[in-house]
Amino acid sequence: MAKNLINVGLVGLGTVGSGVVKVFQTNLDRIEERVGGKIKIKRLVDKFEDRFKELNIENLKFSSDYNDILNDPEIDIVVELIGGIEPARTICLSAMKKGKHVVTANKAILARYWDEIMQTAQNSKVDIYLEASVGGGIPVIQGLHDGLASNNIQAIYGIVNGTTNYILTRMAEGKDFKESLKEAQKKGYAEADSSFDIDGIDSAHKLAILASIAFNTTVDLKDIYTEGIANITHHDFKYAKEEFGQVIKLLAIAKAENGKFEVRVHPTLIPSDHLLAAVDDVYNAIYVVGDIVGPVMFYGQGAGQMAAASAIVSDIVYIARNIYSGVAGKVPSVYYETKHLSAKNIVNIEDIKSRYYLRFTVLDQPGVFATISGILGKYNISIASVYQTERKSGNKVPVIMMTYETLEKDIRIALAEIDNLSITKEKTLLIRVEKGI
Amino acid sequence: MAKNLINVGLVGLGTVGSGVVKVFQTNLDRIEERVGGKIKIKRLVDKFEDRFKELNIENLKFSSDYNDILNDPEIDIVVELIGGIEPARTICLSAMKKGKHVVTANKAILARYWDEIMQTAQNSKVDIYLEASVGGGIPVIQGLHDGLASNNIQAIYGIVNGTTNYILTRMAEGKDFKESLKEAQKKGYAEADSSFDIDGIDSAHKLAILASIAFNTTVDLKDIYTEGIANITHHDFKYAKEEFGQVIKLLAIAKAENGKFEVRVHPTLIPSDHLLAAVDDVYNAIYVVGDIVGPVMFYGQGAGQMAAASAIVSDIVYIARNIYSGVAGKVPSVYYETKHLSAKNIVNIEDIKSRYYLRFTVLDQPGVFATISGILGKYNISIASVYQTERKSGNKVPVIMMTYETLEKDIRIALAEIDNLSITKEKTLLIRVEKGI
Repeated sequence: MAKNLINVGLVGLGTVGSGVVKVFQTNLDRIEERVGGKIKIKRLVDKFEDRFKELNIENLKFSSDYNDILNDPEIDIVVELIGGIEPARTICLSAMKKGKHVVTANKAILARYWDEIMQTAQNSKVDIYLEASVGGGIPVIQGLHDGLASNNIQAIYGIVNGTTNYILTRMAEGKDFKESLKEAQKKGYAEADSSFDIDGIDSAHKLAILASIAFNTTVDLKDIYTEGIANITHHDFKYAKEEFGQVIKLLAIAKAENGKFEVRVHPTLIPSDHLLAAVDDVYNAIYVVGDIVGPVMFYGQGAGQMAAASAIVSDIVYIARNIYSGVAGKVPSVYYETKHLSAKNIVNIEDIKSRYYLRFTVLDQPGVFATISGILGKYNISIASVYQTERKSGNKVPVIMMTYETLEKDIRIALAEIDNLSITKEKTLLIRVEKGI
Repeated sequence: MAKNLINVGLVGLGTVGSGVVKVFQTNLDRIEERVGGKIKIKRLVDKFEDRFKELNIENLKFSSDYNDILNDPEIDIVVELIGGIEPARTICLSAMKKGKHVVTANKAILARYWDEIMQTAQNSKVDIYLEASVGGGIPVIQGLHDGLASNNIQAIYGIVNGTTNYILTRMAEGKDFKESLKEAQKKGYAEADSSFDIDGIDSAHKLAILASIAFNTTVDLKDIYTEGIANITHHDFKYAKEEFGQVIKLLAIAKAENGKFEVRVHPTLIPSDHLLAAVDDVYNAIYVVGDIVGPVMFYGQGAGQMAAASAIVSDIVYIARNIYSGVAGKVPSVYYETKHLSAKNIVNIEDIKSRYYLRFTVLDQPGVFATISGILGKYNISIASVYQTERKSGNKVPVIMMTYETLEKDIRIALAEIDNLSITKEKTLLIRVEKGI
């Protein structure tokens, strides 16, 4: 019997989940054109019935038990949007084992259980799509894998967290960190507990997913060196711009070079005239370098209800069109080629080489500069340029330096020694400079 | 019998064709990983045997007759890279009718024979992929259709011609048009006869393809209003930047609004801080606005041997993976949904509304400004600002104006009248300003 309706089960009616319902309400004609047949959301599951009532929709089955979706044989596609680890992981795995295709935006389970989830999809011969897990509505995962399939990816540089990018944009305008964070929270871009964003953890999750796909490997979250933005001041933006023509962005970086693999998230100096430097506010962009195509950039809204819903519904359309054509689950997972998975030789952060922006906060007295540069010299760190501001607060003064390329290990030892001096009044700030970009 | 080798036939060994051969030589491992099986280029066809000899490859069949590919039952995928109308159109159509999948970068046949080509693919139940026809290596066609499938596309703004973007970038730096064009030719970015690029025709071809896909319609090349860059001077860049904070880009624009559809290619003023303004040199970018996702931008090298080859080989990978999975040709063409094709009510250029940048070249004498503004006022054109430079050449002087939103018809009548005055020494330059971007 030819299929004449595709049923979707949606778990999680939070911001994004209710966005998905809205897209089905407003764009159903468009969706069914693209799908090539009828499709509907059959069941909604959430812990809170209020969320369902607020949606104010008729003829839709609501339940607080996700098993009502898993056990409904009519449901073809399960959309998991509750986030967190459990029961999200169980829902995705169980759905696939029951032969249902899955769409998820859950970066936490993808970054932690990549192998398990992808293997379950392959073994169960179902499709799993996850476009909304990175870069909100930007079709970067598909582009990265399919559109650049002929390339060996050499590097990924991503601005993948809207909250931190909003804060850094405000700081570049001269506002301080606290004020910028408050503004982000006021606008709903940052949670009350914003540490997941601010500390770079959200970006690391997304990098794990991007790098696993781009390099056909499995990147473990714990192997990603991760550093947040909380130690940067708006003065650093001023120095970076005026002295070095650079801006500061929180970048998620993955690079493969000479058999070595670097995966790291940290504030990074990039040239002001680079396209990534123009990505402001809550926007995201993923800049990918392929060995054939050169650089390609994907840009758009990285977060927010409708951006994420756009990606989720596009994934649903994709699966549904395949179901109607009788090909869903028949093409090996585009994200995961078991046969060719490669273990990557991940470089420890201490072994990377970079130029470094350094901001020392030291006593404003004779001989200080000689002391600092003496220690740097001892560890073979060459100074490319120095900037000492005339601004003084008490008797502390910032000294800004740009080094030539240096081994991170050497910088760390040198800074530990410098930070231990009595002339040093605050922990020295280090920001890596991305030269290859 | 399970298939154990996919054979590709390649017609056209020009720059891009030999790039495709190179990618197969350098990245075959990667390609076969992604394909999930063996794949090879079995036959090469070109008019010039020298091109084959230059490639210096063994075990590859060369012929000067494309029928050797069409009539080879072992060939699964035909890659058409000869460009132009015939025999390219015949090759693509015949290949599909013989059950072969097609990859093409040929914007000329796609822009002219969209319906015929897409219908042939559907009737023959084969796949046609055309990523390289727009934006070189940028995976924009796939992103536009699949990645944004849940959206009604509202607008496309594309920098889709690398040659003109290179020239405009140089002009923004203060070089004049002729010098910039020469530089582009010297670097191999512009042909000796560059009119196809300079006059916007290449961009119009690409817009026809993008708009047909994004709006699920068929845009006829002749319905695209097309204007080139040859009348702009480097002084206009200076005025645009200093007086209005804008840059000039050759944009391919498609917009759907209130049942009306605009498709046009012309130099356009956009704000200097817009992301498209940062797209320089031979790079391309396509800025798409979806009703759900908001703005999304795709950026990369829009031309060049390897960028185009990246897209073509990625298309080949895509089809080959589907062949091995037994699903090739089974999913309705992603670019063309016959059932839902919509005719678009294309707005005549005279009926669009825009703000206009105007540069009058007039006699430097009293009363001139009153005369011009009097004529503009007669046709209900309001002036937002005026800038009269002090620079004089002979007794001619440029007067720069920005209008408020005006009907193009009115501007045209007014300018015809002004250009007919004895005080007017050169045809007035008009550049449209894109406000919605």
